[in-house]
Amino acid sequence: MRVYADHAATTKLHKGVLEAMIPVLEEDYGNPSSVHRLGQEAAGILSMAREQIAISLGCTPRELTFTGGGTEADLQAILSGTRAGAAQGRRHVITTAFEHHAVLKPMQKLRREGFDVTFLPVPEDGILQPLEVEKAIRPDTCFVSVMLANNEIGTIQPIREIAEICRSRQILFHTDAVQAVGHIPVDLKELGVDYLSASAHKFGGPKGIGFLYTRQGAFLSSVMEGGEQERGKRAGTENVPGAVGMAKALEISTEHLAEGQKYVSGLRDRLAKGLLQIPGTRINGSMAEGRRVPGNVNVTISGVEAATMLILLDSKGICASAGAACMAGATEPSHVLAAIGLSPEDVSSSLRFSLGADNTEEEVDYIIDVVREQTARLRR
Amino acid sequence: MRVYADHAATTKLHKGVLEAMIPVLEEDYGNPSSVHRLGQEAAGILSMAREQIAISLGCTPRELTFTGGGTEADLQAILSGTRAGAAQGRRHVITTAFEHHAVLKPMQKLRREGFDVTFLPVPEDGILQPLEVEKAIRPDTCFVSVMLANNEIGTIQPIREIAEICRSRQILFHTDAVQAVGHIPVDLKELGVDYLSASAHKFGGPKGIGFLYTRQGAFLSSVMEGGEQERGKRAGTENVPGAVGMAKALEISTEHLAEGQKYVSGLRDRLAKGLLQIPGTRINGSMAEGRRVPGNVNVTISGVEAATMLILLDSKGICASAGAACMAGATEPSHVLAAIGLSPEDVSSSLRFSLGADNTEEEVDYIIDVVREQTARLRR
Repeated sequence: MRVYADHAATTKLHKGVLEAMIPVLEEDYGNPSSVHRLGQEAAGILSMAREQIAISLGCTPRELTFTGGGTEADLQAILSGTRAGAAQGRRHVITTAFEHHAVLKPMQKLRREGFDVTFLPVPEDGILQPLEVEKAIRPDTCFVSVMLANNEIGTIQPIREIAEICRSRQILFHTDAVQAVGHIPVDLKELGVDYLSASAHKFGGPKGIGFLYTRQGAFLSSVMEGGEQERGKRAGTENVPGAVGMAKALEISTEHLAEGQKYVSGLRDRLAKGLLQIPGTRINGSMAEGRRVPGNVNVTISGVEAATMLILLDSKGICASAGAACMAGATEPSHVLAAIGLSPEDVSSSLRFSLGADNTEEEVDYIIDVVREQTARLRR
Repeated sequence: MRVYADHAATTKLHKGVLEAMIPVLEEDYGNPSSVHRLGQEAAGILSMAREQIAISLGCTPRELTFTGGGTEADLQAILSGTRAGAAQGRRHVITTAFEHHAVLKPMQKLRREGFDVTFLPVPEDGILQPLEVEKAIRPDTCFVSVMLANNEIGTIQPIREIAEICRSRQILFHTDAVQAVGHIPVDLKELGVDYLSASAHKFGGPKGIGFLYTRQGAFLSSVMEGGEQERGKRAGTENVPGAVGMAKALEISTEHLAEGQKYVSGLRDRLAKGLLQIPGTRINGSMAEGRRVPGNVNVTISGVEAATMLILLDSKGICASAGAACMAGATEPSHVLAAIGLSPEDVSSSLRFSLGADNTEEEVDYIIDVVREQTARLRR
């Protein structure tokens, strides 16, 4: 059996996405900036994709900037918000200790550039309390970035509350929603954030494209400078087929969101329950209703080296991960699990399974069986 | 008749590119950073694409960094070279007045950040003399950027000679080869540059991907920070299908380069000759053998407003442009034509036709007929 349980790393294209992209790749190859018919057709297609995403998220098309992926969207949000702050002489920034590296690294760089950055600790359940943000705010705080859902433990942060605290103090607020968009309801009218970043390949769209939402009126600066694409905010010929694929993937995800959430979280709970029956296991991050993305199970298996377990799982056809794929090459242990208080030993004994709507109960049971079997073997 | 004569803006996918991308889009969807089989398969595919491009260009795979396009590659080269220079206290940079905006804009930004930037003038034939670079070099010059082929007039710059001048003075040298790669021979062993940027959709590959070549030993800094992809030099999940499409497009272009050059430059010369028979026309930029990319014809038609002509051409099914597509939204007149000395009036009477291997003599003759006819009409 082959079981893909690494949907947080990347997802297979949703059915219908490739079909939407192929005619654009084949026939509608114009450059949207060209004034002739072929260019204008491409511009129209790009516009429709933007409109479709705006509808799915409850924003206006003008508030969306297409980027090369989630990392670029995070970077653009961080640079925009902090530049706006610096222009007013405010150089204090707040984020959390368990953000994705696409947020952490630019934050570390800001620090080297003279910004004061507070990395808030995260409690054991993996859910930041809005009060902690409120307490960290200073008169010179200009920007706050807190992820919507964590990529390793899947916990959902109280973004609406944090956004409200920031808004009431004229502080720009960004959320990295790469693990949330397409998996849980994301309604920008309700969330109240200034910036939100997402990546298509995390919700059944193609790799190489993402977007940044910027609330109308919030300052937006460019990362890419050159041509006047994206209202002058992201230079470079637009990836039209990518945008079409992303819009289609989000449309499909949104359409099936309620049933998908129910189905996938059912699988997740089944997997968590099964794994917890193996002695010496625990689930990392809150499993409370509505506080975790549907597909995520992060489990510590005492006395088992996760790196070895992953190889064994792989040999049995199961794709899972330890920590974020983006850092897989690195030997660095998970900063997320360390942030929620796991010992170095437990960190290196932790696995992430991330399920999707294409998984089945049979597959989940197979994962449980294989993990039980291999755990016994490794502990011997 | 529909004639696409705007290949410098973007190109149709080469036959075979989509076929190479589809299985990767459909089945090989793993994240190359994942350690499991699906991830490692994707990593292998990415590796092969990189290897294929390295072979086409005469470099090593490690010298290639995949980017979101030509603009990002230009930016990364410029930031890398100038940061390396600044670290040594050298803050003088040389470029030309007729670079693409993806180079000009970051250069203007460097200037605001305290770099001294020399924008070299360009002679009427559109070919920078290496001696001009040599004369502009100062003890504090750290970085030079000169494009390989100009995007509006198609003239090819003596990059090998300029690179040699820079190398002998320990100055890092970048060339924006977006209009050259896939159209004329680009052999990195021979060119001797430190950085070279390219964009897939300009040579029959997909939009949303490009690459930066960085000579082994030349300093490379990141634009995107986050995950450890691309040896830590470009964070973000790799666009595997895009890389495969780009590699395939370059392979096809390279394979057919000699015949393509001959065929397309034949069409170009036919078009130029035909247009020159219309009274009051002239070709901008050198037409000397080997000094112009095969497909480019940039023509000034006295007394004719290019913007109007483009609409008329479009209504007759001909896709052409005035200046770069990237600035089409802007009302700014072409800085390239101004740089080579055209009067504002001539600038606004200039059209760019850029031909490709899918064009025919019949199409070229049709363009000539329509331009002649519409010129007469507009001049009346």
